[in-house]
Parts: sequence; C-alpha cells; structure tokens
Amino acid sequence: MTTFDILSRKRRGERHTSGEIRRLIEGFVAGEVADYQMSAWLMAVCINGLEPDETLALTEAMVASGETIDLLGLPGPTVDKHSTGGVGDKTTLVIVPLLACAGLTVAKMSGRGLGLTGGTIDKLEAIPGFRTSLTREEFLDQAKRIGCALAGQTANLVPADKKIYALRDVTATVDCVPLIAASVMSKKLACGARTIILDIKVGRGAFVHDIESARTLAQTMIEIGRAAGRRTIAVITGMDEPLGRAVGNANEVAEAIATLHGSGPTDLTDLSLDLAAMLHSAATASPLDSSRATMSEILHSGAAIEKLRQWIRAQGGDAGVVDDSGMLPQPLARLEVICQSTGNVQSLDAESIAQAASLLGTGRLRLGDVIDPSAGVLLHKKTGDPVQAGEPLATLASNRENTLPAAAELANGAWTISSNAVRPSPTIIETLGF
Amino acid sequence: MTTFDILSRKRRGERHTSGEIRRLIEGFVAGEVADYQMSAWLMAVCINGLEPDETLALTEAMVASGETIDLLGLPGPTVDKHSTGGVGDKTTLVIVPLLACAGLTVAKMSGRGLGLTGGTIDKLEAIPGFRTSLTREEFLDQAKRIGCALAGQTANLVPADKKIYALRDVTATVDCVPLIAASVMSKKLACGARTIILDIKVGRGAFVHDIESARTLAQTMIEIGRAAGRRTIAVITGMDEPLGRAVGNANEVAEAIATLHGSGPTDLTDLSLDLAAMLHSAATASPLDSSRATMSEILHSGAAIEKLRQWIRAQGGDAGVVDDSGMLPQPLARLEVICQSTGNVQSLDAESIAQAASLLGTGRLRLGDVIDPSAGVLLHKKTGDPVQAGEPLATLASNRENTLPAAAELANGAWTISSNAVRPSPTIIETLGF
Repeated sequence: MTTFDILSRKRRGERHTSGEIRRLIEGFVAGEVADYQMSAWLMAVCINGLEPDETLALTEAMVASGETIDLLGLPGPTVDKHSTGGVGDKTTLVIVPLLACAGLTVAKMSGRGLGLTGGTIDKLEAIPGFRTSLTREEFLDQAKRIGCALAGQTANLVPADKKIYALRDVTATVDCVPLIAASVMSKKLACGARTIILDIKVGRGAFVHDIESARTLAQTMIEIGRAAGRRTIAVITGMDEPLGRAVGNANEVAEAIATLHGSGPTDLTDLSLDLAAMLHSAATASPLDSSRATMSEILHSGAAIEKLRQWIRAQGGDAGVVDDSGMLPQPLARLEVICQSTGNVQSLDAESIAQAASLLGTGRLRLGDVIDPSAGVLLHKKTGDPVQAGEPLATLASNRENTLPAAAELANGAWTISSNAVRPSPTIIETLGF
Repeated sequence: MTTFDILSRKRRGERHTSGEIRRLIEGFVAGEVADYQMSAWLMAVCINGLEPDETLALTEAMVASGETIDLLGLPGPTVDKHSTGGVGDKTTLVIVPLLACAGLTVAKMSGRGLGLTGGTIDKLEAIPGFRTSLTREEFLDQAKRIGCALAGQTANLVPADKKIYALRDVTATVDCVPLIAASVMSKKLACGARTIILDIKVGRGAFVHDIESARTLAQTMIEIGRAAGRRTIAVITGMDEPLGRAVGNANEVAEAIATLHGSGPTDLTDLSLDLAAMLHSAATASPLDSSRATMSEILHSGAAIEKLRQWIRAQGGDAGVVDDSGMLPQPLARLEVICQSTGNVQSLDAESIAQAASLLGTGRLRLGDVIDPSAGVLLHKKTGDPVQAGEPLATLASNRENTLPAAAELANGAWTISSNAVRPSPTIIETLGF
C-alpha cells in the first residue's frame, strides 16, 4: 500500500491497519512521505477521525520513531504525570517531592512551554544554577539515588511527534482528539513510567473548553495507556481561573515552595495532594484515603520540602531559594492592578490573565523566544474573595517596564465583581479510570 | 484572515468568501502559502466540499494567477471544447476543421496526456513537422487567417492549476468534483472562447464511472462557465468501449483523417458531427437540426478535409499525411490478437485496451516519459460485431517489440463474446444545458 493509497483511505473515512499507520509514520520520519502528504493525512484525520485501534497504532508508531527510556532498573514503582496545560499550573513542582518521599520514583521528562505561559522546564530554570539538560546516565542515576529527576525532552525522544507537531501547528490540525492523545501518550510511553496520571484542564484558560471534549480526550488517552500496558488514570480539573495565585516562572516556583512549606494556596495544595495520592494509590494498590493521608503527612512533616532541597541540589541548583525566594530572579518593575468597585469576585478569567502574563514576558509565542523568568502576575483576589474599591487585585511584574500598562489593561478585564456571594468551584471536576 | 484561519474554516465545513479563496490561491502561487498548507486545504475540500460560489471563486482566482488570452479580435464566434478524457477519443481532430469551415473560430489550447493514452497535442505531434508550440502572435494570426489554431498550453496560462494539480496528484485529492471543475474551467476561461462544449466521458474507460457523478461534474462546470459569462453546454458520452477503432497517437490521427474523408467509424463520425453541431447551434443561435445538416454537408463536400490540410500546413506539418497515412510514424512490429470463440461481442473493456496500449508506448505515466507515436491498438471487433474463432480481434503495434506479448495478453481479456445478439449503445447518453 502506497502513501497515496493510505491518504485515499482516510479521505474516504476508512479504517487503517496498524501496518499502514506504521508505514506512514516511518516514511515521514525517513523523509519518504512528504510534508504535503502528511498534512493532507492529518487534515483527513481531523475531519474523519481515528478509531481507538488506529490511535493506538499511531501512538506506538510514534514511540518507535526514536529512543525510549527504560526505567525497569529503578527502585519503587515508576510514575509520571501529564497536564494538558493551564494557567498557573505548577503542580508538578509540588508533587514530584511528595511522590519521591512516598517511595515512588519520578524520572520525568517535560517540555518547554509554547504558548502564553512557560512549561515545567522553564519554571525550573528560574532557579539559579538548575540544569534541565541531563545525560541519560545522570538522569537515571539521580532518579535511583533520590527518587526523582526531571529533564527536558531529548531530541531523540519521539522525533515523529516533533515533526508532526510542527506541521499541525501551521495547518489548523492541532485541536483534534486522537492527534493530541497520540502526541501526549507517545511521549509518556517513551519515558517508561508504569503508572501515569493525566490532568485534563477544562475551561477558559485551557485549550479544552467543555467537559464533553475533556472526557473524550481523557478516555482516549486512558485507552492508549492501558493498551500499551500502563496503569493510566485521569482527572478533569477546572481551569476557568488560574490555579493558585502566581502566574509566571520564578513566582510559580516561589508558590510551589510555599506549598511544600505548608503555606500554599488551598486550591493548589489540595490538587497537588489529590494528584499525588491518586498516583500513589494506583501505583501501589493502596486505598485512596490512606494514600491521601500519607501525602498529607509527608507534606506537613517537612519531608517534602527537604526532598525539594535535595532535588534542586542534585540538578546543580541553589537550594537556598527554598528558604529565601528573594534569590529567585526579581523584576525591574512592578505595577498594581487596582479594583474599581466593591463586592465579591464572581469570576476571574484565566485567559486574560495568561495574555497579560505573556505580554509581561512569561511565555514564548515562537520557538526560540526568550522568556523573562521574573515576569508574571500575582493574584490577590480570586473567585469568592470579597474586595473593596481601591484594593489591589493583582501585582504585575516584568523586566520590560513598558509592557506593564498594556498588561494591566488586559488583566483588569479579567475580574467580574458583583454584590452576590460566590463559592469557588472545586478544582477536580471528575476522575476517570480510577 | 490568515492561511491558518482559512484552513480552520474548511476543516469545520464552513463556507469561504471569495476573498478568502483569492488570498489562498494568490498566496500559494506567490510561495507564501506552503505546499503542506495547500494540500491540507485540498483534503478538507475533498471531504467537506465546496459550494457553487466557492468553486466559481476558486476558478476565477486560478484564472487570475496567470496570463489570459483575448480572442475578441478574431472573426466569427469563438468556440472551445473539452473532453474529460477517454480511450480513442480523437474528436477534437475531427471537429476543429468542421467548425472552422462553418465560420466559427477555434483558437484552442490543449494538454499533453498524462495517463494511459496521449492527449490531443501528443496526437498532433505524430504528424511529421507539426508544431504545437506557437507564439501568442502566431496562434492568434493563424486563427484569424484560417479559423483554427491548436497549441500546447503555455506555462503562463493558469500557473495555479499546474501547481495545485502537482499536489493533488500525490495527495489523493484528484477525484473531487469542485477541484476537477475548477481545474478544467479555469483553463477554458483563460483561453477566452465565448462558447464552450464539455464532453463528460462516463464508463469503464473514463475516470467518471457512474452517470450521477458525470451529471454533477457537468452541472458544476456549466454553472462556472455561465457565471463567468460563457455559453456553456455539456454532453455525457459513454466510454465503456473505446471510441472508434484506433487507440494510440499516429493511428488515431489516421482515423480522424479517414473520418474527415467520410470513411470513419460510425460512432466517431456521429459523435463528431453532433458535438460540432451543438457547438455551432449554441454559438450562432441556429436550430440544432440545421447546424447538424451544415456539419454533415461540410464533411461530405470535402471542405473539412481541405481545411485539415490547410491547418496542418499552417502549423508546419506535412499535409501529405492526409492522403497517405503511410507517412505517419510506422511501428517496427505488429501482433494480432486472435479470437478463441465464435459469437457476438457483448462488450469491449476500454480500460484493458488502454492498459495494453500504454504498455505498447502510447502514454506517459510520469511527466517527461517519451511516447512512441507509432504504438497503439487497432480494434477489428467492437460491441455488437459478430466474430469467428480464428479471426483477429485487434492488431497491436509498437516500436518496442518485447512489449507485444504482454500487451496481447492484457488486450485479450477485453472482449466478452457470447451467442446473444447485441446492439451497441448510443454514444451520447445525455445533453445538459443545451
């Protein structure tokens, strides 16, 4: 079967064999299938869909396109977590030490952010000296020694995904459930962890806007993970407003540290404990409530914050930041966004906050853009909080002083204030596959 | 609206404005829209379709991508004809002299064949000395002087079509009604004739296999032609068996000459007279039966064969071929396909004959392949003919002697013989827009 025949089949909405999909992906990575052929196939997939067995075959073909990491030599159950991306989501920084303290091993690769805010790697790089490029040996040795290691994805990991993503990005084929699922799961499978939790963000600050789509995406990814022999569970979490109070890079690290000190915002603390507990429960077959108690104990005993110091030192970072967040990159300028009315915060639009943060320098719109680690937004008022006219709603920070006024204007529109009392929604909306 | 937005819209099945389509085509020709973006759009169009106004906008944007030919300075009504391509279809060679004798002007551009058999240009080039590359001035001067001129398409005519076709060919997006219609009609519109007849071939030897699809294609093209201010009519003609008895290049020229001498096969003679009459009637507003009588008179008076001599000489060819077909390229070897049973021909599969002819050297499978003008198949028995075991069904001809046995085997399967009496179907199945 030629590339032409494969395209014809998907154009007609027919189902591919796994051999066809393998041939297509292998051919694309080898340069035998042209970009214009792959983009036509991707468009046909976006319109006509992929069945679960096709999505699995695509994922496996993508995994096979590059190196994979074997974690079988590591002690303890290996676990991994993926978030589809939200505003202020720094849960990875919190749960990695929690999990490592509980005897699980987190040998995890993360991406840089491409979009309005930074990725986990960008956040960690706000810590002075922290190295996110580790050799395979360093990575595995560290995970074995301290129970955790977190590095940037190497170029050899799922090269098919990089090549396909570059095309999807410019051909309007990004928001397609099977393609998203295959992209995420190919990287999770290649990284080798046996138990995986997926955090599907839904709401105005996420790329998934409705619960139905979130459920479909979660189920698709769970099916792939399980078919590939990994314990896979998912949570759908709300992303109408940012998670926690910090949006940026250095300020998110500071907030994660505060959370591990036991003084973080409630939503971030609870979600981190819940994610860690679910992963622990799934990986060790412990009852969920005992896993939850374990995580809570680890957090409050100070074990987790000590693990964070150990982790930062292991990757060359200055662990002094754990006790003095002033050592993190500081902005040249700050500006407060002042509330114009009195009442209660009805809602806080995560997307407007992300756009303001992006303007301040938190994210990159193109690969290669430079991030300002000190830039960001600190939210003083979130949904349900009472507020007086004249009180600050947020503090904006940036090294690029001239971006502050426009960012303030953008941020200002994010809050809706009224006299009604409002109760914030719980972060976890639904748990799947648990 | 960016290219990305345009792709998104068609992916969602939304309707484009003509401005969007113009921007896409202009951008593609200018190199600003990448191949992989255009191929994704083409795939979305194949799956989600184009509305008539979008197809018209696409056609007009394609016409605007290059030079156009202005025929307004020529005497007599200007006419053009397009066939979607069939096996043994040499009607253009017959109708051009007929039309020119009737006071119409045929200043026509044709393509080379890409597929199993040659195109009109390939056929004409079988005539010794015949030049199919004419300057614009030569082309228009000749049409003015003798009423007809036929040249290969220049590179500047509808460059968007060439670029788009090259992509469609390798991305399984060829058989798509609006794309086919826009491709054909953009070239017809760019060539400037005021009245156009479209011959939609349907059957085993055509790319359209059913009457419904043929009707849809015909109607789509008629709508485009009329919206662009051209009188446009169409016929749907059967292509289950080859038209006439010759399939090839030199032998098709010989058969067209015989037809203009009045001794051609009935199906080819009738279809040629019908097409010419319909075009004459549509272009001059004469009643169809009087146009048919005019064409018959022109054929039988010898005026058309004299016009053919004049035409061949005008384009540098040796008009001696009109009276001595032995001057056309002759093959090095011939082989007869012998009938194994006695009865009547029930059917004769055009596709098998085309494949045999292709093997003998009549067509090109890739651009740049060299055609053997002497190669071809001469059919001695067609549907309805009685045949005795031992009689020849066809004579195969080629300069590549070693291709004859395999071609004979392929050709052999084309005939179905049984004892039932069979009447051949009429060639014209339906007339549209007349």
